[in-house]
Amino acid sequence: MSPAGRLIGVGVGPGDPELLTLKAVRALESADVVAHFAKAGNVSNARRTAEKFLRPSAIELPLLYPLTTERCTDEAEYGSTIKAFFDAAALALEAHLQAGRVVAVLSEGDPLFFGSYLHVHVRLTDRFQTEVIPGVTAMSGCWSAAGLPIAHGDDVLSVLPATLEQSELARRFRQNEPAVVMKLGRHLPKVRRALIEADRLASAIYVERGTMHNERLMPLANKTDEGSPYFSIVLVAGRGRPR
Amino acid sequence: MSPAGRLIGVGVGPGDPELLTLKAVRALESADVVAHFAKAGNVSNARRTAEKFLRPSAIELPLLYPLTTERCTDEAEYGSTIKAFFDAAALALEAHLQAGRVVAVLSEGDPLFFGSYLHVHVRLTDRFQTEVIPGVTAMSGCWSAAGLPIAHGDDVLSVLPATLEQSELARRFRQNEPAVVMKLGRHLPKVRRALIEADRLASAIYVERGTMHNERLMPLANKTDEGSPYFSIVLVAGRGRPR
Repeated sequence: MSPAGRLIGVGVGPGDPELLTLKAVRALESADVVAHFAKAGNVSNARRTAEKFLRPSAIELPLLYPLTTERCTDEAEYGSTIKAFFDAAALALEAHLQAGRVVAVLSEGDPLFFGSYLHVHVRLTDRFQTEVIPGVTAMSGCWSAAGLPIAHGDDVLSVLPATLEQSELARRFRQNEPAVVMKLGRHLPKVRRALIEADRLASAIYVERGTMHNERLMPLANKTDEGSPYFSIVLVAGRGRPR
Repeated sequence: MSPAGRLIGVGVGPGDPELLTLKAVRALESADVVAHFAKAGNVSNARRTAEKFLRPSAIELPLLYPLTTERCTDEAEYGSTIKAFFDAAALALEAHLQAGRVVAVLSEGDPLFFGSYLHVHVRLTDRFQTEVIPGVTAMSGCWSAAGLPIAHGDDVLSVLPATLEQSELARRFRQNEPAVVMKLGRHLPKVRRALIEADRLASAIYVERGTMHNERLMPLANKTDEGSPYFSIVLVAGRGRPR
């Protein structure tokens, strides 16, 4: 553990700036460096959410993904490219930590739940003082916007990536438990087919940009297959209604 | 929809008062009535977390569970008792809503994720203007305190109630996916046996009162079976390490 700088993974929540925690706001007020992940050419969603809380004097460190599609066709190439990217991102953060700075890494939703932050966390946490500030997840933002009690009593909740095979998605949906499907994007038609196969389409709600000013929310049955952003989510209500 | 009062489900997060969102704090500043669930004779955990944000002039409405154990031996009796309790709680809230008041219901963690709030939500949302303010879940607080990246890439995350049968828990653990076990309490020995059966005890972390001042956190293998509060959690890391 180095006595040098300090790394803070800061969850900024699902998109509404009012859904930052007090702790996240204070961390941004004290950070010397604020890092954020984004696709090259885009503004980081997390930065946009946290924008009004950033100090003008903070050093900003954009960490730009090398890829513009969710996944290359060649899995091995994707794996090595993304690994090299996180290695380089960790090195860029490390330079500031070695210089004794407090480095906040913005993370959409919660830092250790499907966030890019966790890849630099595992590279740095053994050598630097680290703190993780949990955030409201995108899925919490979505089911709150929908007013849908997602899990109660003895429910089992499954959080499924839309990248799973259709048959595997359908198998999970057939268990009649509440489910959240993440990372929808171009996988929406497949997720819909799996829900139809499991006879659960009527329980599915589509949420796009939950809690943001341009939020869209509708029964999945009413949503066309086109134009779903990567960060849209499908919520599948369980069979039992809370009593 | 009545033009009368407004119901707000307010997620207060996992226990650290700094983990309230800005939106939750503002809701508490504007609420005429603040309701909170607790066991008779206890102070509500959610109230303790939110205490410093309550207005002295707000009307407090404690909603006291009729039961002191997690579950009676007779399931049917438990079901009807708890249903009558939520009916009465909704009526108590309704009286304030009919009088045109803004009524905030405090909820540990996130209001629609295993919270008591959701039972009054389903009873009132069709008739009154309702807003749900999502919160940081207890499980996010726990994996952040543990510094454990719980889910990444194509992981499937399962959230399991400790009330499931040992064989069912073991079946789920054998899928080698990350898992969170909630509502531990007296079920801890069974959860441990299921993890041993699935050969995953070494991946399990026990967290008690995550993010609170008296948090306890250790490998489950080091935890004795005695004295686990209801709100303790077991985190089971997935097999793959983030790259």
